[in-house]
This record gives sequence, C-alpha cells and structure tokens, in this order.
Amino acid sequence: MSAFQTLAWRDEALVLLDQTRLPGELVYLECREVETAARAIEELVVRGAPAIGVAAAYGMVLGAGEALAQEPEAFRRHLQQSRARLARTRPTAVNLFWALEQMDQVIAATAGLGNHQVREQLLARAEALRAEDETLCRRLGQHGAALLQDGFRILTHCNAGSLATAGFGTALGLIYAAQAEGKQLKVYADETRPLLQGSRLTAWELQQHGVEVTVICDNMAAVVMRQAPIDCVIVGADRIAANGDVANKIGTYGVAVLARAHHIPFYVAAPVSTLDLSLAQGVQIPIEERRPEEVSRGLGRVTAPEGVGIYNPAFDVTPAELVTAIISEKGIARPPFAEALRRWGEGGNPG
Amino acid sequence: MSAFQTLAWRDEALVLLDQTRLPGELVYLECREVETAARAIEELVVRGAPAIGVAAAYGMVLGAGEALAQEPEAFRRHLQQSRARLARTRPTAVNLFWALEQMDQVIAATAGLGNHQVREQLLARAEALRAEDETLCRRLGQHGAALLQDGFRILTHCNAGSLATAGFGTALGLIYAAQAEGKQLKVYADETRPLLQGSRLTAWELQQHGVEVTVICDNMAAVVMRQAPIDCVIVGADRIAANGDVANKIGTYGVAVLARAHHIPFYVAAPVSTLDLSLAQGVQIPIEERRPEEVSRGLGRVTAPEGVGIYNPAFDVTPAELVTAIISEKGIARPPFAEALRRWGEGGNPG
Repeated sequence: MSAFQTLAWRDEALVLLDQTRLPGELVYLECREVETAARAIEELVVRGAPAIGVAAAYGMVLGAGEALAQEPEAFRRHLQQSRARLARTRPTAVNLFWALEQMDQVIAATAGLGNHQVREQLLARAEALRAEDETLCRRLGQHGAALLQDGFRILTHCNAGSLATAGFGTALGLIYAAQAEGKQLKVYADETRPLLQGSRLTAWELQQHGVEVTVICDNMAAVVMRQAPIDCVIVGADRIAANGDVANKIGTYGVAVLARAHHIPFYVAAPVSTLDLSLAQGVQIPIEERRPEEVSRGLGRVTAPEGVGIYNPAFDVTPAELVTAIISEKGIARPPFAEALRRWGEGGNPG
Repeated sequence: MSAFQTLAWRDEALVLLDQTRLPGELVYLECREVETAARAIEELVVRGAPAIGVAAAYGMVLGAGEALAQEPEAFRRHLQQSRARLARTRPTAVNLFWALEQMDQVIAATAGLGNHQVREQLLARAEALRAEDETLCRRLGQHGAALLQDGFRILTHCNAGSLATAGFGTALGLIYAAQAEGKQLKVYADETRPLLQGSRLTAWELQQHGVEVTVICDNMAAVVMRQAPIDCVIVGADRIAANGDVANKIGTYGVAVLARAHHIPFYVAAPVSTLDLSLAQGVQIPIEERRPEEVSRGLGRVTAPEGVGIYNPAFDVTPAELVTAIISEKGIARPPFAEALRRWGEGGNPG
C-alpha cells in the first residue's frame, strides 16, 4: 500500500525508516545491535506507540544474536540486560512494555532450549507482533471508518499513521479505511511542535496515500475548528488508563478541550495493547520530559535566548470525559469507558 | 529602562531594532526612505500594533524628505503616494491606519506652508506619537497592574511588550508595572508559531527586564493552565471592534477558549488607538494571511513536504464573551464592553 516501510526485519537486521530525516530525505537505518535499536527509539528514528513496541521486540532478537556464543546462563543474563536497556528508552508508551512482556513469555517458555532456538523463537514472536499490528490496525480502521462520512473535514495531531505502526496506522488508519470505501476526506494536520511530527510525517504520509491535507500550526487548530468547520478530531494514544484517560502527544489535551468547546467529536484510535488496566487514572501515567533544546534549537536555528526556562513534556493526559469514543481492533467504546476497556483487556491481548 | 530601543528617530533616519534577528543578534536597521520603512513593516523588522503605528508615522516624514525639492503639488502628491505605500503594508493592526490619519491631519492643517515646514510638522507629530505611546503604555500598565497579585503565574501569547510599542509594552507593560510595585511574577511565554515572537522576543525582553520566564510550545498552554496552574492570561491586540471582539496574533482565540475552560481570567491590554469603533463586530476585521513558507521553511529547515496545503493566517478574532477585561490607558473595562469602549473612543484618541 505504501512506497515506504516503517520497520522491517531484513538480512538479520532491524531496518527502520529514519523519521528524523523526513520529509527531506527517505533513508533507512540498519540496526544490528540492541544498543543501536535502543538509541533509535530514544532519538525518535522510530516513534509512535505501536511501532516502538514492535521495534523493541526486534531489539530483543538483536540482543539474543549478540550473545549466541555464550554459555546459556550468560546468554540469558544478556537477554535481561537487553530488556532493561530497551525498557529504559521511553517511559510513556505502554506498548513498549507490553511487547517486552511478550518477549519475556518466549524467554520463560524456552527455558532449557539452546541459544539459537531461543533466538529463533524470539524472532518468530517479533515477526508475529509485526504482522498482528498490521492486521489489528486494519481491523481498527474498518471499525472506525464507520464514524467518518464522505466529505468530512478531520483534524489530527502528531502522527498516528503508517509511520507510527508496523504499517497501516491507527488514527490515520481510519482515514485510509474510509478512503478505501470511496469516501473523500480532507485532513488538517497540526504541525505538532516541537518535533513537527504532524507537518513532517503526517502530511508526508497522507500525501503518499493521496489524501488531501493542509498543515496548520498548533495554535491555528481553534480557528480552523470554528471556520472550516471540522467534523471530527482523531488522534492516537500512547497509553490509556482503565477509566479511559488518554496519554498522547503533547497538545492532545488542548485539542480535546477545543473540540469540546466547538461541539466536535473527539476520537481516540489505538490497539488494545495501548490499554494499561493496572492504572486507574491517567494521572498515574509517567510523562516523559525531553531536552529543552528540542524547543529552543530543534529546527536549525536558535529560537529562544540562552538562560530562559523551557518546559518540554512529550505527552499530556486527556481526561476520559473529553473523549467521544475510543476505537480499537475490538470495536468502538463510548463513555463511560471502564467496562468496555476491561472487557477488551480481558479478552487477552491479541498478540 | 531597557538596554535596547525598539524604534527611534536619529540623524534624520528611522532606526529600527531588527526583530527578525533576535534573540541571536542585536542589530539596528536604518531607514532613510519610505520604501525601506514600508518593507521593514511588511517583513516584521518592526511589529506589534502600536510600534507599527509609530513607525508608519515616521515613514511619512521620510516620504516628505524624499520630495522636499519638488514643487508643492508634486510634494503633496508624493506624500499621498507614501501614505498609500505605508497603508498597504499590513491590513490588520488598526494603529497603522490611525497613525496615518494623524499625519493626514497635519498635512491638511499645513496647506499653504512650504515643504520644509510641512516635513517639520510631520516630524513633530511623529515624535509626539512616539512619546505619547510610551506615556500611554505606562498609564495602561499602572491600571492593569492592580489585577496582578504577588506570586501570580501569567501566560502570554506572542509579544505585546517593549518590542511591540515605542518602548514600554501593553500586555508586558502590566507585568513591568507590577514588578515595579515589588510584585514577583512568573511568566509562561507561548513560543507563538510560525514566527516565534514568544520565544524569540517575549522571552528575550522579559529576561532583559529581570522577569522569570519559561518558554513553552503553543500546544503546551492547556497542560500548563491545568498544572502550573496559571492565574491569568494577558495578551495585546491588533484591533478591537465596538463590541469588544479582539483581533490578535493567531492562536489567541485558542488560548482564550482554553482559559475559559480552566476558569482563568483572560485580559487584553491595548491603547485606545487599537479600538475600531467603525466595526460592530470582530468578524469584519480583515485578517492578514501570510506566505506558507513561514510555516514550512521559516526556521532554516524544510518542515513540511512540497505540495501539501498550508494555511497561515497571521491573526484570529477572540469573541468578546471570552474576554474578562480590556485594559487601556483610560482604565479597565468589563463586559459588556460596548459602552466603555464607546466612551473611551469618544474621549478622542489621546494622540
């Protein structure tokens, strides 16, 4: 469907489309060591909760590959170190930890097997997670497409598309699925400061998919909601608490408040692996704070004076009461979300 | 009070602090021709409604200087051409047109006088406008400072400070006045995409004035309002309609909606020359749309793919019902605004 691949396993390496270089350059980074993969996650070469999860799973395969020649005990110790390294990369997206738990299960189930066999089974599970992510996103897209009517003007924030998953997208998956049904849609993409995932990534991949897109600065969302007007907002999620509170890219909470003020439906699209039912409320979700330089010199120019304070949280939490519906591969949940989310979670993660 | 001067008349030239180069460089642009001054306004070397007005007034003096040797008729024709050129620079800030009307009065009142005398009187009026702007801003600041308590956390958008006026500021003037009264304040400055007047200019001048400031991306305003929490929002204005609707830098409307949702007072600080009582409502205010490249390549890097749509309005309109108070040199107006604004306007523009 796309002329690009967000992430792939090729020739014994994890190959990542380097998203820090888009839209200027389409280049791939080959990761052959767990450290390279971990840094790629930290530095946002690969980003987006589902994609981070799959990348971390492949990272465990790389970790296994590094220690194949060692004694089983040292091999398993290295696997634990690899896991710890990958878990340290980014704190907010729960899919990362969920994917690592999937790999833990493989490690536990292969006790007694040789190193090569363990690695093979880790690779098989990583490949399955990647394939399942694509399937889940397509199913999610089909459920969600029902919410979108022909001619809709949709606002989205950050990138929850092909580039944020193994290949189909969550928020943008709805759009691709609706487009496949013949609906014409128009998307407004918040540029999403400081790292511009909206203008750099969402605009680029929508253009690749032939969807009409207009980039706006984040501070234009309110006036676009009033003037365009916008028919619905769709965003992805990095972690969803048991009550339906949603952690997502910084700025999502503001968009949700604005959507409510303009009586616009606010939809969250995310696979069940994004649920964290161990947390009652969003306030418990750890929020990553990133380097101030992303704000003050992230774009090739110094844009704030030396010595002033800079606040740079990477995510925020949107309270469930501002969310109109949550769409997953299991269907569409409406408020109050707690029971539907519990049911989705109990069904077991489809991975 | 400051180590910099936003604009000055020196050695027969209009000298402008080049705000496009801040915070990296502190350089001044000398304008000796009306065309140079007009371009400086268009290209935002000087910006901010009150500063634009004063710069345009000096621009008329430059226009007069260019035609001194001509016959009186040609001289006056050149003045009209200069006026037309300056009026074409930016459509939204009404202070520009207000200042040009002040100069029209001088031209009308000097019919029959020699070219040199006309120019002298134009210069005298421009100097008076500059001095009055400073006085008005100080008076405005003193009125508004009463709204600010010691320890307040204040959010502002764009730059309505010393750099936006002849030297004291409107929104930031309140802060400087409160600081002079011994109040400790903490300011959060929206960076204000696309041209970053918040991070480049507001943060810089607050730092120069010894005010604690934290820069945030525009999309962080909502979460800062919830978490900091913010005690009040203060912004400037480019034009205020008779009913109190406020045109100001793009993003102001969104900030006002967010402030309302968080029960935070939203204050607008502007001199009476910003009123446009000829417009019943804000919807009649012309909104400048600027080049898409300001969004897609304004920061030294290409940040959006070629060929996608980009929407780049420079201003938006905040409806009066979201405004808690308007502060001018005449005092503090509360809703409904119509009568207070009419009274302020009838008092005559203090220029």
